[in-house]
Amino acid sequence: MPYYPFLQNILMAFPDIFRKLIRGPQIITLKDAAIISAFTGISSGCRVVDAGAGSGFLAIYMGNLVRPEGKVFSYERREDFAKLAAKNVERAGLGSFVEIKNKDIFQGIDEKDVDVVTLDMPDPWLAIPNAKNALKDGGFLVSYVPSVEQFRQFVLDCEKTGLRHQQTVECSIREMEVRERGTRPQTKGIMHTGYITFVRK
Amino acid sequence: MPYYPFLQNILMAFPDIFRKLIRGPQIITLKDAAIISAFTGISSGCRVVDAGAGSGFLAIYMGNLVRPEGKVFSYERREDFAKLAAKNVERAGLGSFVEIKNKDIFQGIDEKDVDVVTLDMPDPWLAIPNAKNALKDGGFLVSYVPSVEQFRQFVLDCEKTGLRHQQTVECSIREMEVRERGTRPQTKGIMHTGYITFVRK
Amino acid sequence: MPYYPFLQNILMAFPDIFRKLIRGPQIITLKDAAIISAFTGISSGCRVVDAGAGSGFLAIYMGNLVRPEGKVFSYERREDFAKLAAKNVERAGLGSFVEIKNKDIFQGIDEKDVDVVTLDMPDPWLAIPNAKNALKDGGFLVSYVPSVEQFRQFVLDCEKTGLRHQQTVECSIREMEVRERGTRPQTKGIMHTGYITFVRK
Amino acid sequence: MPYYPFLQNILMAFPDIFRKLIRGPQIITLKDAAIISAFTGISSGCRVVDAGAGSGFLAIYMGNLVRPEGKVFSYERREDFAKLAAKNVERAGLGSFVEIKNKDIFQGIDEKDVDVVTLDMPDPWLAIPNAKNALKDGGFLVSYVPSVEQFRQFVLDCEKTGLRHQQTVECSIREMEVRERGTRPQTKGIMHTGYITFVRK
Repeated sequence: MPYYPFLQNILMAFPDIFRKLIRGPQIITLKDAAIISAFTGISSGCRVVDAGAGSGFLAIYMGNLVRPEGKVFSYERREDFAKLAAKNVERAGLGSFVEIKNKDIFQGIDEKDVDVVTLDMPDPWLAIPNAKNALKDGGFLVSYVPSVEQFRQFVLDCEKTGLRHQQTVECSIREMEVRERGTRPQTKGIMHTGYITFVRK
Repeated sequence: MPYYPFLQNILMAFPDIFRKLIRGPQIITLKDAAIISAFTGISSGCRVVDAGAGSGFLAIYMGNLVRPEGKVFSYERREDFAKLAAKNVERAGLGSFVEIKNKDIFQGIDEKDVDVVTLDMPDPWLAIPNAKNALKDGGFLVSYVPSVEQFRQFVLDCEKTGLRHQQTVECSIREMEVRERGTRPQTKGIMHTGYITFVRK
Repeated sequence: MPYYPFLQNILMAFPDIFRKLIRGPQIITLKDAAIISAFTGISSGCRVVDAGAGSGFLAIYMGNLVRPEGKVFSYERREDFAKLAAKNVERAGLGSFVEIKNKDIFQGIDEKDVDVVTLDMPDPWLAIPNAKNALKDGGFLVSYVPSVEQFRQFVLDCEKTGLRHQQTVECSIREMEVRERGTRPQTKGIMHTGYITFVRK
Repeated sequence: MPYYPFLQNILMAFPDIFRKLIRGPQIITLKDAAIISAFTGISSGCRVVDAGAGSGFLAIYMGNLVRPEGKVFSYERREDFAKLAAKNVERAGLGSFVEIKNKDIFQGIDEKDVDVVTLDMPDPWLAIPNAKNALKDGGFLVSYVPSVEQFRQFVLDCEKTGLRHQQTVECSIREMEVRERGTRPQTKGIMHTGYITFVRK
């Protein structure tokens, strides 16, 4: 199994790797990375463009899924974040499947005919024209933003560009506690991370 | 790209395939398949045991993720369901990566050292001893049940067997509507599908 | 107990009455009427201004709480709705405690020094100046709207007018099923009714 | 307005009073007190039996609603809690409408023909026979418990006693943040307080 050396160690299943990465800028949660990947069908062989890389978590999550024949190209305009993301990619043993690019996605996307473009940035609507050009027909464009105004502008701008809005969702996870004295949901927890918008070319 | 012929057609990304499968016994939702796979790290190269196959949706979802070097072995004791699941596997073009077995998982698991065992059945606690034997150290055992009593019994029986309960969660998706007159959550929707329990060897 | 003849019949507790009212324009849910009343402290003796009356449900709900010394004045500019609301008030036996006014609240509020003003209308920000004048110091202004843009504009306009935004909330109710085979949340249900905003003079 | 001296001060609307009470044993949340009262129609003139009083919050909340002709009788077997609850009742200015009784509700209920009985205790099923005797026909019995096993046993025991289970619900409140940079749900918050069960005689 040459592609994922981190899995050779039994204590190194992917959720374990994920926990050991260095956290810089706020990272995407595992649940949201899961929904983004599942609803776009990211799997072995897919070619994905991602921006901004941030700490690299979403790129690494998707990089693990596109192995061994696909690739994730993750754009990050800040040099310090790009370096951190690249370091995390190496820690995850995914250097062959994730390329961190210290470039501004608003200036252009080098790749063509990609399956999915994911945008984890405050102003994803500014990347729509470049994303549309990079996507193959039927490909997915995804944005991940915390606020309502952000996904609304993204959806409206996508529709003006001729892309089809599929859905915008929130995903919530609630943990259940199993104790001797009874079973109940956790008392406190995360109420909101971000809205995920799926658009299709 | 010999492994996933269904992706050669641009209109055949995985979420599209999923919608074209034949629905027999109640199927798992995409969100729950996503969380199960994400929280256990299912990806290329993983070997997974699944039961009961039902219509085969979870097996197919995971089969797409373990390509091209992993495999999903899905047990189903009812012959009619096993045939339906096998037909769906062929429709998805995943015959090389998903094997439907018309066998009762309570009678034994043929595979050894698997990464993950998933149980989508009313009485998952009955499969704990066989699942524990089949799992490698550090491997994940997952159950998916609709009721509180079911996951409680599963968690308590797992702990008696020396397996570690990691968490039991519910995953909810709420869609947001973007209309000219405003942005708001959908009015009606799915409030509950099932509880997902993650246990580790 | 002269004030609430409908309670003299044991089958006529208030939730029963509520179900027998005539439903015209979309009515507020019991959960939202409960949260509005609880978070503003509506109880015996309170004087409340309400608009628009619609079918009169919120006015009736609050009218039952302000008995026997308080009063609800409910504005409704559409004559047909005002008649329906007045009919429902009579059915509920609350004619002494709820006055339906066929008037446009944007044109003025007759009452002064009221404890609470509730606005169940698409454009509640237009009623802010009149509501502010009608409220006593420390009184509550509440809006109930389905969309995000609506409560945002209401909050921002209130703050410009010198009113203090306390909170905007969504209230969700999820029912649990107790069956012989197990206990679980209901499968489908109401995901969203409206956002409730509380502002204070 | 002789009945609610605390409302004579403009800074003393009921939600303000609520915040100034002394917190001893864990108190019920305002949202849950609101749903309990709304779904049972508690309002002026109602006679309510409550147990256990704890810090007295639920009794005080209901006492404010039953003014000026109704009354809440709140049972508490622990003397220290009963004293605390009585002190809070005085602070709220509701001494005429809430009576704290240092008695064990399992030993008997002095009142007859009450409209509602509320049980905020770990083992509400033990109070069913006494509650049934105290309730008038059509009256409501309510339990408030944190765990699934608790409301299940309560529901099943009520049904054995000939009381009708109406519903068991969870109520969630999610706050929305209105900031200059956007509108979004709060990040963290309360995921669970308790399950509320409504049963009817």
